[in-house]
Amino acid sequence: MKILLKNARILTMNDGDNIFDGDILINDNIIEKIGKEIVVKNVDQIIDCDGNLLMPGFKNAHTHSAMSFARSCSDDLPLDKWLNDCIFPMEDKLSADDQYYLSKISILEYLSSGITACFDMYYNPLEMMKASLEYGFRTVLLGTISDFRESVKEMVEAYNYINSQNNNLVKYEMGFHAEYTASDEMLKELAGASKKLHAKIFTHSSETYKEVEECKKRHNGLTPVEYMESLGLLDNGGGIFHGVVLSDNDIKILKRYNIGVVSCPGSNSKLASGIAPLSKYKDENVLLGLGTDGAGSNNCLDMFYEMHLASVLQKLLYKDPTKGDAFDILKMATIGSAKIMGLDNCDVLKEGKYADIIMIDLKQPNMQPINNIAKNLVYSGSKSNIKMTMINGKVLYMDGKYFVDDDLEKLYKKCQEITNYLKSTN
Amino acid sequence: MKILLKNARILTMNDGDNIFDGDILINDNIIEKIGKEIVVKNVDQIIDCDGNLLMPGFKNAHTHSAMSFARSCSDDLPLDKWLNDCIFPMEDKLSADDQYYLSKISILEYLSSGITACFDMYYNPLEMMKASLEYGFRTVLLGTISDFRESVKEMVEAYNYINSQNNNLVKYEMGFHAEYTASDEMLKELAGASKKLHAKIFTHSSETYKEVEECKKRHNGLTPVEYMESLGLLDNGGGIFHGVVLSDNDIKILKRYNIGVVSCPGSNSKLASGIAPLSKYKDENVLLGLGTDGAGSNNCLDMFYEMHLASVLQKLLYKDPTKGDAFDILKMATIGSAKIMGLDNCDVLKEGKYADIIMIDLKQPNMQPINNIAKNLVYSGSKSNIKMTMINGKVLYMDGKYFVDDDLEKLYKKCQEITNYLKSTN
Repeated sequence: MKILLKNARILTMNDGDNIFDGDILINDNIIEKIGKEIVVKNVDQIIDCDGNLLMPGFKNAHTHSAMSFARSCSDDLPLDKWLNDCIFPMEDKLSADDQYYLSKISILEYLSSGITACFDMYYNPLEMMKASLEYGFRTVLLGTISDFRESVKEMVEAYNYINSQNNNLVKYEMGFHAEYTASDEMLKELAGASKKLHAKIFTHSSETYKEVEECKKRHNGLTPVEYMESLGLLDNGGGIFHGVVLSDNDIKILKRYNIGVVSCPGSNSKLASGIAPLSKYKDENVLLGLGTDGAGSNNCLDMFYEMHLASVLQKLLYKDPTKGDAFDILKMATIGSAKIMGLDNCDVLKEGKYADIIMIDLKQPNMQPINNIAKNLVYSGSKSNIKMTMINGKVLYMDGKYFVDDDLEKLYKKCQEITNYLKSTN
Repeated sequence: MKILLKNARILTMNDGDNIFDGDILINDNIIEKIGKEIVVKNVDQIIDCDGNLLMPGFKNAHTHSAMSFARSCSDDLPLDKWLNDCIFPMEDKLSADDQYYLSKISILEYLSSGITACFDMYYNPLEMMKASLEYGFRTVLLGTISDFRESVKEMVEAYNYINSQNNNLVKYEMGFHAEYTASDEMLKELAGASKKLHAKIFTHSSETYKEVEECKKRHNGLTPVEYMESLGLLDNGGGIFHGVVLSDNDIKILKRYNIGVVSCPGSNSKLASGIAPLSKYKDENVLLGLGTDGAGSNNCLDMFYEMHLASVLQKLLYKDPTKGDAFDILKMATIGSAKIMGLDNCDVLKEGKYADIIMIDLKQPNMQPINNIAKNLVYSGSKSNIKMTMINGKVLYMDGKYFVDDDLEKLYKKCQEITNYLKSTN
């Protein structure tokens, strides 16, 4: 199957903010050629981009896809009430099968927002794997063991099983929920498994001031990052989610082990956790990505909102409108996240890479007139500008329509029933 | 012309956050009936809402529609460079005719974001009036005199001329740019005109800490609000835009004269001006509205972004996730803004009001499952959920299509040419 994307403006993200007019030829799931004007015989489909922008899809580097049930069910509440009165009781009733359906809703939302891959941290990873493969969505699955749920043994099994699958859409990484839900013993066992398999480790970390202070009390004054280093959990690389509160020493450690920081400004602001000083991290050359977090805490899974917010929060934090430069933020949402997720094969538009491509509708009023397309994307772009989302060479979303083999009305009904049951006190 | 909107969920905004299933009958430009199931003969058009939500359109209570030329042309710059190197030189070259075309782009963006009326502060108001009437858009035009442009005399002429027009789509209010661009003499003359015509006065005020401190130096320690009061500029009511930095005495004064505060969180954060303490203002019963500001400083004219940001900034400011409650923010964006703009005739869905109605597509993944529709709107809603925008009984936008008598490709081309000329150094 050969698809030719004609008459586009192209932002490869491989060449700074340079944008040129051209075509892209896709052969099966691979970008075969990018050029000024591609002439080719025997192409199966030609898509006229009509001057709209092609760019790499956004990579959502932190989410919990199955948590769509928690959208708008527990907002404007203190954190402990949010967790204890809503999220935890609902999760206790959640079945693996429920997760399959609920994850699909999030995948659809990713597609509509131009997100072509997500880093999905949740238990029962086979459910999100099933949903991803069914829809043709790219997912890096992430284990999330804790003292309460799933063991290192189960995670190693998932790691070996999922990474031996014969497909390029899903893979699995190792992770634990957080320092504050993990025992020393479990984390030592995890470090051992990581060493044996040369596996990276990912976790929620340094999300709030309170979390860091409590960690220090528990672990002889060590911050969560210092504590992880002391256990050997950083030896094979990986990343932390949130990273709102990082000390100078934490930053040194993260750089030493090439650990990425995935910022989730939507979630951090909605839960009043604080603003991660991304400008400082950038100046220190920390590897940075962007994530939406789950629908329970954000509540949208929308990379446009996340990018705009990430930028303006830097300006507010530093009282300086030059901070949070739009192109730096765009890099976080694409190549930065991709690097942290280990998706070097679909990070930019380049010959030989997987065809994970989105088309941005520039012919909407929020994109006009055009002074600077990269700044338009971050400061006035919206998911309504997503004209097409292509993953692995397949168009999964175009002009508001989803090209997935599913009855969406039925799916919504099913997820509503699941959610009503989870909320019920029976 | 009678239109029946069938099978909807209805949020009137006149009845708290209550949502019920029902129909709405529109007779010409008026809501004739709202009810459970309306049976009527001789209706010209029936629109099946298919369970989607009808609610009052958003009211954008602060904008500069003609400034679409400045979108993404001067971001990530210090404020003085933004103004002096970009905005002011471009405005110097801007013709009245240019404003007509550039304003149209913003109106289209309002329609796509469910905004059914704007409070448009710019000079040459007849241009935005022309664009609004041509498209059928509702605009409260606002004068913006300063020491540099337009006089009280010209504003009084515009006030009398525009408010004597025989239409219900446009009206005109009096305003001045800001304390820091206005002489005592001009403001005293303005206060006199306001008294004579019983006209409200609106202005940019208390946007930054620097502005307030410099005002105090110029005016014997008076804040901008205190200074306006001292000149009698508040005697007939009105409003201030931004209101980021207000003292307790300012708040007392604003309440005494029933002066509204229009918050513009998108602009205030992008320019690093600060966060208006809206939770405090709300607790003090200050009349609150929401605005996008112009495309030069925001850069999107999107009430979904503005609502979401307004809410989460309160949570961050107070380090408290219970602040910035979603429904309070939704009230600001609809009935609060309408009150400040003097649009009591189209503020809520009620029999006898003008039919300014939007339809929200609930059948998109970012609105599923449904736990709380009001929270969905603020925390996960997007302009992509705007299925229909109706103003004065006419559908102007539906399913991504604009029902305006214009060639949009030509309009975009024209505005790009204007913008290129404004940016050129010739």
